[in-house]
Amino acid sequence: MSLLKNDRFLRALQRQPVDVTPVWLMRQAGRYLPEYRNTRTRAGDFLTLCQTPELACEVTLQPLARFPLDAAILFSDILTIPDAMGLGLYFSTNEGPCFTRPVRSQADIEALGVPDPYQELRYVIDAVTLIRKELDGRVPLIGFSGSPWTLATYMVEGGATKTFRKVKGLLFEQPQVMHTLLDKLAQSVTVYLNAQIAAGAQAVMVFDTWGGILTTRDYLEFSLRYMRYIVAHLTRTYDQQRVPIILFTKDGNEWLEEIAATGCDAVGLDWKLPLTVARARIGDKVALQGNLDPCVLYASPERIRQEVATLLASYGAGPGHIFNLGHGIHPEVDPDHVAVCVDAVHTLSPQFNQQCH
Amino acid sequence: MSLLKNDRFLRALQRQPVDVTPVWLMRQAGRYLPEYRNTRTRAGDFLTLCQTPELACEVTLQPLARFPLDAAILFSDILTIPDAMGLGLYFSTNEGPCFTRPVRSQADIEALGVPDPYQELRYVIDAVTLIRKELDGRVPLIGFSGSPWTLATYMVEGGATKTFRKVKGLLFEQPQVMHTLLDKLAQSVTVYLNAQIAAGAQAVMVFDTWGGILTTRDYLEFSLRYMRYIVAHLTRTYDQQRVPIILFTKDGNEWLEEIAATGCDAVGLDWKLPLTVARARIGDKVALQGNLDPCVLYASPERIRQEVATLLASYGAGPGHIFNLGHGIHPEVDPDHVAVCVDAVHTLSPQFNQQCH
Repeated sequence: MSLLKNDRFLRALQRQPVDVTPVWLMRQAGRYLPEYRNTRTRAGDFLTLCQTPELACEVTLQPLARFPLDAAILFSDILTIPDAMGLGLYFSTNEGPCFTRPVRSQADIEALGVPDPYQELRYVIDAVTLIRKELDGRVPLIGFSGSPWTLATYMVEGGATKTFRKVKGLLFEQPQVMHTLLDKLAQSVTVYLNAQIAAGAQAVMVFDTWGGILTTRDYLEFSLRYMRYIVAHLTRTYDQQRVPIILFTKDGNEWLEEIAATGCDAVGLDWKLPLTVARARIGDKVALQGNLDPCVLYASPERIRQEVATLLASYGAGPGHIFNLGHGIHPEVDPDHVAVCVDAVHTLSPQFNQQCH
Repeated sequence: MSLLKNDRFLRALQRQPVDVTPVWLMRQAGRYLPEYRNTRTRAGDFLTLCQTPELACEVTLQPLARFPLDAAILFSDILTIPDAMGLGLYFSTNEGPCFTRPVRSQADIEALGVPDPYQELRYVIDAVTLIRKELDGRVPLIGFSGSPWTLATYMVEGGATKTFRKVKGLLFEQPQVMHTLLDKLAQSVTVYLNAQIAAGAQAVMVFDTWGGILTTRDYLEFSLRYMRYIVAHLTRTYDQQRVPIILFTKDGNEWLEEIAATGCDAVGLDWKLPLTVARARIGDKVALQGNLDPCVLYASPERIRQEVATLLASYGAGPGHIFNLGHGIHPEVDPDHVAVCVDAVHTLSPQFNQQCH
């Protein structure tokens, strides 16, 4: 493997001093980029794009060709694991991701196996290998997975939902069956992420998109518990390098302390919690990733710079901040505004990092 | 006006002792009730239902005929004020509420007037008068309005949105124009709620459905500031009775202290924050309304009773709790499950209230 030329991101995740605050953006490879839309058109459909390592590699690298980002993130879908379990993932035009065979009963759940990442998920591992090669050490590569609870939500509902009727019905009526499902998913996510790490992912992130719809009690029991299992069973050192883990629960600000106590290296934050408050709450325990309101990218370059400055100041001096949005880039955002944001982070952040040396 | 026969709800809002914990449910008059669906079919469309006082009165009273609820809430739409301002409210089948003439520019906003509740919103005031008469003092009537920020969101977006692009664009680019709009809305909500109070509403609630999509800084500046204005300018005593005010910001748990400090009587909570935590944070400052996960109503009667017991215990002994859901009743809920929930609150709560006498 090539030597890493820019290790700011990995250093910041370990709360080590850096020259400038590292920055990457959730969904940095995505629909706001015309070159992404071209590749997607060429692929024909979204799943082919995800399942063809050359195309997944191509779109992963597109934002890096435009912006001096400090990390790349594997381009893939959050629902690869349930698809590999045999649920039949497809994308409907209006309703987003759907499953042909959702799981509803104890029998459905007991029939599920833990997918072999080198068989059913081979295309993801091949994409990781290819991206690492093509990156040639420019920046680190982030691997990722959905959280067990988030995957279970889609698997039980069979697609997107506003009410979460079926999955919460299962949670309230048959909690042990729900735990069986979550346990299989936690094992699956663990072997999947460990295979990504073995193929070259230098950090991993777990996206808990739907943990935030639970009560505190249910979040701790049905979501965080399984993320803790994953953190405890991941490869933490590979090729003599620490592989940091980032946990992100959308709408999970109230559980920051509990998330930080899982043993992860960093917590991703949505845009609602001021970084000053977040930092005061968790101290030096973990690094913090985030948390610009993604709608700021609709504003003028001048206002974007001003908001970046405010955000950097709200974290303040010292190590442990990775600049990101609090949610993925919206598809209508102008790529030139993304350029302004990335530039502002690098230009305005030395003053907050010099005190570390 | 008839003497009020059941004042538990009003007493609890003022943190006075009660015999059992009062209960009402957001969207208690709604699609989960077959009799509501019948009236709506008879009305032809949703706006006619809202704008015909006899029909609005009929659906307001329907849940009270089924369940021993401790309060009625005016049946109306959250977007009556923008409609009265001339924006042309209509409901599209897929996208929900929409405006024919959304506001986008400074000129659009400067052209807006404060609607006269006795002219453009006469149908609401007439509905309040009629409902009070028909209630005949059985339980108190709650009036309501959307918050200025929530109304502004729909007015600028022109309908439902996932990205809030236009309204946040205006907020970031022309904050003073946004303040002009919010100021007009705060005045409009104030005169609208005061007219509801004069017509017979015995408590009022402000629904801030979209405050929770803002950062803390922007929530305080663009949402809470205007709710504070409303609280300061509402009629607090009418007909020698205190008229309590409830503020509810969905996804606003992190700002509980700030909301409680506005001078309101009670804070509505979504289902995420444990009542024990909420109570510890605000002490005796305000009453708390909520906060059962609405999905619990999908569970079995036995499980519903168990969750009601847990929730009552989590608030604990003493005054100031109004039982409610953390969000509106989902349309697919079985009305018999609602009956179980209401019964459980009354049956299980005396032990938490006796210590107040």
